[in-house]
Amino acid sequence: MNYVSISTIGKHEGKEVFIRGWVYNKRSSGKIKFLIVRDGTGMIQGVLVKGEVDHKYFDLFERLTQESSIVVRGRVREDRRAIGGYEIDITTLEILQIAGEYPVSPKEHGTEFLMDHRHLWIRSKRQFAILRIRNDIVNAIRDYFNSNGFVLIDAPIFTPAACEGTTTLFETSYFDDKAYLTQSGQLYMEAAAMAFGKVYCFGPTFRAEKSKTRRHLTEFWMVEPEVAFMDLNGDMELAEDFIEYIVQRTLGNMGNELRMLERDTSILENARKPFPRISYDEAFDILKKEKPDIVWGNDLGANDETILSNRFDKPVFIHRFPTTCKAFYMKSDPENEKLSLSVDMLAPEGYGEIIGGGEREDDLDKLFSKIKEHNLPVETLNWYLDLRRYGSVLHAGFGLGLERIVAWICGISHVRETIPFPRLINRLTP
Amino acid sequence: MNYVSISTIGKHEGKEVFIRGWVYNKRSSGKIKFLIVRDGTGMIQGVLVKGEVDHKYFDLFERLTQESSIVVRGRVREDRRAIGGYEIDITTLEILQIAGEYPVSPKEHGTEFLMDHRHLWIRSKRQFAILRIRNDIVNAIRDYFNSNGFVLIDAPIFTPAACEGTTTLFETSYFDDKAYLTQSGQLYMEAAAMAFGKVYCFGPTFRAEKSKTRRHLTEFWMVEPEVAFMDLNGDMELAEDFIEYIVQRTLGNMGNELRMLERDTSILENARKPFPRISYDEAFDILKKEKPDIVWGNDLGANDETILSNRFDKPVFIHRFPTTCKAFYMKSDPENEKLSLSVDMLAPEGYGEIIGGGEREDDLDKLFSKIKEHNLPVETLNWYLDLRRYGSVLHAGFGLGLERIVAWICGISHVRETIPFPRLINRLTP
Repeated sequence: MNYVSISTIGKHEGKEVFIRGWVYNKRSSGKIKFLIVRDGTGMIQGVLVKGEVDHKYFDLFERLTQESSIVVRGRVREDRRAIGGYEIDITTLEILQIAGEYPVSPKEHGTEFLMDHRHLWIRSKRQFAILRIRNDIVNAIRDYFNSNGFVLIDAPIFTPAACEGTTTLFETSYFDDKAYLTQSGQLYMEAAAMAFGKVYCFGPTFRAEKSKTRRHLTEFWMVEPEVAFMDLNGDMELAEDFIEYIVQRTLGNMGNELRMLERDTSILENARKPFPRISYDEAFDILKKEKPDIVWGNDLGANDETILSNRFDKPVFIHRFPTTCKAFYMKSDPENEKLSLSVDMLAPEGYGEIIGGGEREDDLDKLFSKIKEHNLPVETLNWYLDLRRYGSVLHAGFGLGLERIVAWICGISHVRETIPFPRLINRLTP
Repeated sequence: MNYVSISTIGKHEGKEVFIRGWVYNKRSSGKIKFLIVRDGTGMIQGVLVKGEVDHKYFDLFERLTQESSIVVRGRVREDRRAIGGYEIDITTLEILQIAGEYPVSPKEHGTEFLMDHRHLWIRSKRQFAILRIRNDIVNAIRDYFNSNGFVLIDAPIFTPAACEGTTTLFETSYFDDKAYLTQSGQLYMEAAAMAFGKVYCFGPTFRAEKSKTRRHLTEFWMVEPEVAFMDLNGDMELAEDFIEYIVQRTLGNMGNELRMLERDTSILENARKPFPRISYDEAFDILKKEKPDIVWGNDLGANDETILSNRFDKPVFIHRFPTTCKAFYMKSDPENEKLSLSVDMLAPEGYGEIIGGGEREDDLDKLFSKIKEHNLPVETLNWYLDLRRYGSVLHAGFGLGLERIVAWICGISHVRETIPFPRLINRLTP
């Protein structure tokens, strides 16, 4: 039998095909029955006309419920008004299973109800579009690094020590020991950059985030490139080239899905390099005008990021944060020891930080002092110090949170819809 | 300055270039000094000839230690005898950092010593080759699925319940609750296949493996495709097409790296479909001749797999295992209820199981009974039963352990070298 995917239906115009899938919706209009079928690759409307097909298929049609699994046979016909540009004139219909009353009906549901039914919710049009865009963004990320000479080096998930404090770490018993779930692969990527030059990792990372925010998940995917012999300027050039590539490629590939989400893509089309670069000091002056009691040396809050990103119509870099608000491994600015050679990238439209990175301290003595200043355990970081003992070189990198860029590109407000099975403080199922 | 990567050195023949990297080795022969430099993309031999360059560079040469970071300037010259086919006639030399006495010297080291220094060990030629092959295999896997219409759907790492028993699960406290680290994304992929048709996940999975074996890590990467409307036969066709693609592409792309590992590639070249298919019953008859006390109904052990795979010069499928040795979700063979529609693929040369999969039970009542028989908690699997309540269809899939196929393709005996930072029962660092 000639089973075809709905996504390739245009190749079969005028021919009789079989489609296997599920009932998305159905309706009647006099002696015509309409059946919207989805098969995971797309949707198509099937038409049953009384008098033209055996009456038994009309009886089967009446029995169909939302999400029942079926095989339809019919002839493919172009119809410019139809979803996808084609319809199918049904000649036979086979029921595989009549679905029970489907919980996720087209009516409105509360978020918790939908999240409880995530395993079914992903079948609906909007979630389908978001997760296909996520898939495409993941491919864009990997293709970018592959075509630019990077080697994928997976960072470990189990780590013996924390990179940036322990308050938001998940702990697990590890035989007779304890292990923590990684929050960043960066230290491992630094080791790998000394072996392979240009590397990246791309895997799940974990944060025991105790507050509920629309930007945080307990489990999220992060991509972290690291490059030997790259400085802060090179880091920003890499980041803007990378983001431009992801955004423009997604616009090119995912037009249908973005339309399904009714995304206004004008600001995405504008995300072309160079991106504006302002220093923390410049950002501070901007914020000072709106928030007179702001304190120099503090990290930017979500509200500060919104104020700053709203001033630009494309992503913006904030560079050279005070050392006080960045991690121990950040290199100090040789022109001002109070500043670090760090950089964040803020997405426009109030999406805030999507990238954080910078140059790493490459001097053994300075790094050792910083570990001490931050009260971190030297013995667990001794291997990391080895990277400064044996052929230390200038290097830099950054981390991009996958769910945050998916949220921005899709134009959705909460990251929980950007990952197939979200995990939050109060959400561990399904 | 014209900084170039060693991997692209051929494009600069006859030109003067700068290379930034690390000292891999050095030696003297009369008035000629040889310096092997690595930069993460490859290695090249630099030559310093007395009388042709300033004497100060000879003094610098004398100071160089293994893994010191340097910048060399010189003219590129073709030399067929050289590694990579080119040499560089050094004109200037700049030292970035003189490395302290490097722990991983070219002499022999014990495994534990090397594993303790994994962050440095990855710079050595053999590990460099293995991890580049791993990178290429990951890309082959993703390209295969992308070009065959699959959608990447990341499975969650935190799961509320176990898929296949709890004895080898890592447990973590999850706020006021408990979570387990995933051992398989399969159940989630089944949900996703009903939404997207053809899906896969590819992420880290965890097993609190208490025994030390050469085939097990506590943290490893697994790729799991799942396809709606696919039966056991289709599953085997997909698996052999997939493995052929990975192996043949790796042979084409990674010839240099495989030569660095001195891999005999003849058996890899032979890994072309179709792969032989034998039933468990046929396998049992083969094994019975060598092990008369073997019991029908038990799963195959590592030793059994070796006996079987040694009879074939390419990967072999073993299908239709007894239901007693497979998980609750496996569909029973309608022709013999004692058998399951399951399949394993064994790699040749004694590498054993690299793939396990099969058709999933798609009947609600049968699946419910199997959950009861296996004493699994129905309430935590209720969401999974929903997949059989709402539009259940025939479906199948499999899991491939990344480190096992990397080990086989590289021809190495222990999986610990196939992952950048291995985690084992007694190994959580670096």
